[in-house]
Amino acid sequence: MRILITGAAGMIGTKLTARLLADGHLHETPIEQLDLVDIVAVPVEDPRAETIVGDLNEPEVATGVARRRPDVIFHLAGVVSGEAELDFDKGMRVNLDGTRALFEAIRHVESTPRVVFTSSIAVFGAPCPAIIGDDFHLTPLTSYGSEKAMGELLLADYTRRGFFDGIGIRLPTISVRPGAPNAAASGFFSGIIREPLAGLVAVLPVPRDVVHTHASPRAAIRYLVHAAGLDSHAVGARRNLTMPGVAVSVGEQIEALGRVAGPDKMALIREEPDELVASIVAGWPTRFAPDRALALGFTGEANYDEIIATHIADELER
Amino acid sequence: MRILITGAAGMIGTKLTARLLADGHLHETPIEQLDLVDIVAVPVEDPRAETIVGDLNEPEVATGVARRRPDVIFHLAGVVSGEAELDFDKGMRVNLDGTRALFEAIRHVESTPRVVFTSSIAVFGAPCPAIIGDDFHLTPLTSYGSEKAMGELLLADYTRRGFFDGIGIRLPTISVRPGAPNAAASGFFSGIIREPLAGLVAVLPVPRDVVHTHASPRAAIRYLVHAAGLDSHAVGARRNLTMPGVAVSVGEQIEALGRVAGPDKMALIREEPDELVASIVAGWPTRFAPDRALALGFTGEANYDEIIATHIADELER
Repeated sequence: MRILITGAAGMIGTKLTARLLADGHLHETPIEQLDLVDIVAVPVEDPRAETIVGDLNEPEVATGVARRRPDVIFHLAGVVSGEAELDFDKGMRVNLDGTRALFEAIRHVESTPRVVFTSSIAVFGAPCPAIIGDDFHLTPLTSYGSEKAMGELLLADYTRRGFFDGIGIRLPTISVRPGAPNAAASGFFSGIIREPLAGLVAVLPVPRDVVHTHASPRAAIRYLVHAAGLDSHAVGARRNLTMPGVAVSVGEQIEALGRVAGPDKMALIREEPDELVASIVAGWPTRFAPDRALALGFTGEANYDEIIATHIADELER
Repeated sequence: MRILITGAAGMIGTKLTARLLADGHLHETPIEQLDLVDIVAVPVEDPRAETIVGDLNEPEVATGVARRRPDVIFHLAGVVSGEAELDFDKGMRVNLDGTRALFEAIRHVESTPRVVFTSSIAVFGAPCPAIIGDDFHLTPLTSYGSEKAMGELLLADYTRRGFFDGIGIRLPTISVRPGAPNAAASGFFSGIIREPLAGLVAVLPVPRDVVHTHASPRAAIRYLVHAAGLDSHAVGARRNLTMPGVAVSVGEQIEALGRVAGPDKMALIREEPDELVASIVAGWPTRFAPDRALALGFTGEANYDEIIATHIADELER
């Protein structure tokens, strides 16, 4: 089978690529070719992988990758919430127009690949119920969330019309994100764990009672792979699914850090309130009841301690 | 004040224009200039009205009308559901790209006009609860509904960012539509009343137990005018509102026709099942609890008899 990953140089793309190449197959079908697209070079060397540097908004890039007739497409490319909020035009161009350009290119090729699209819980906006069910409406309070919500609508309609076979997965905030901080407003949720574990000071820009839902990078990759193998009829017309996650307060995150790594790590967290970040996060949802995803076999972590342990195992002990 | 109407040659546009010119003011502010845009000529002769023939997707058209700095914009332009379903590219170009082009043009002018956008209950798709509340998610089952849902998201985000001050109103099916049938899949809901009242045979393509929510053209114009005057703070971040309507079955519509116009009119309805129409309509919602709109002062008809009487008064007795 042939697989395409957009945004392959990103954190999720890198991990997904590594997992697919290590597995050598996807749902029991051998992976013969992996096309890796990003606007920056993807540093992968493997005879099965081909890297393409390009912007999906350039017609020849989207058309070029679609014409290779991938069986499965993981569409991860996008700019993050903070960047889309600061640069409206860039967010719309990358997150909306880039997605549409890819979908259009796929539409015009004679095949109906499975397209797995990463949406986000940023499609929800306050006021939300204490627990958001699968029927709650999307009222994003960021441009990023609006672009993802429009991507979901495109995905569902392109699927309904038979242009491809799409599944959108709304990822919770991914923590603990490895590597350097990015421009996402949610970055501190990872920073307050990652930096202390590395012996560094971490900044906490919001109050400790802020509740948020998390999944590890390992869980996100598991969701993507599971989505690629879902039976289309079992999913039905509603192609976008909220993924499971662990709902905890920032204070509970920090307590878990103390339990897993020792109380001295907790002392490395410095509270520096940031109004912009706090106001963005205040508009985000907190807890979910992702019944449809659970019924379709998606599985997340049991608690935040497990998320920290996963980070230590996957990033620090390798 | 200066007012812009897009899609001004359409049924709603024509009636809105007539009402605004007759009133001479909008919420107590005198109307000095009315800019009427459509892809076909708008047959209005009034010193206050200027007609512009053009497509909003042509940059100079959207920019041109935005640069006139209207205080209120009624964005009605669009292709209807049946046409958007048959011609995907046209629906996307007109309903999504045209809306975005207009919004972008407004954004780049130094003013924040009130933008009233006509969305549709086609943003909802089965399975729906028996009564759809204001928090139910948008899962359209037509391309038209998907395009309107994306328009709603754009409207909300452009408003949130301060590019303009938008209100989206989800119109129920407008009945009784005057004039010739159009390409909307919902056209028969009006046809089964309008044609018999004119002594003509009407085709009914769906079973009589199909329930649907209706508002008269007069109510639609009332909603548009009311939306133009809404206090932005009272509306809050959720800029898109389901409008009130009368929920009746097709059988109840026909009974109302008998009551208002005599039983002989009922005999002019011929049942000719149409699978395409029936399948589109089966995906539509039936009943609503438009609590937010009611709290904000929108008022619809009391029953379907009133809708027929309004049609007779506004169309047949003039």
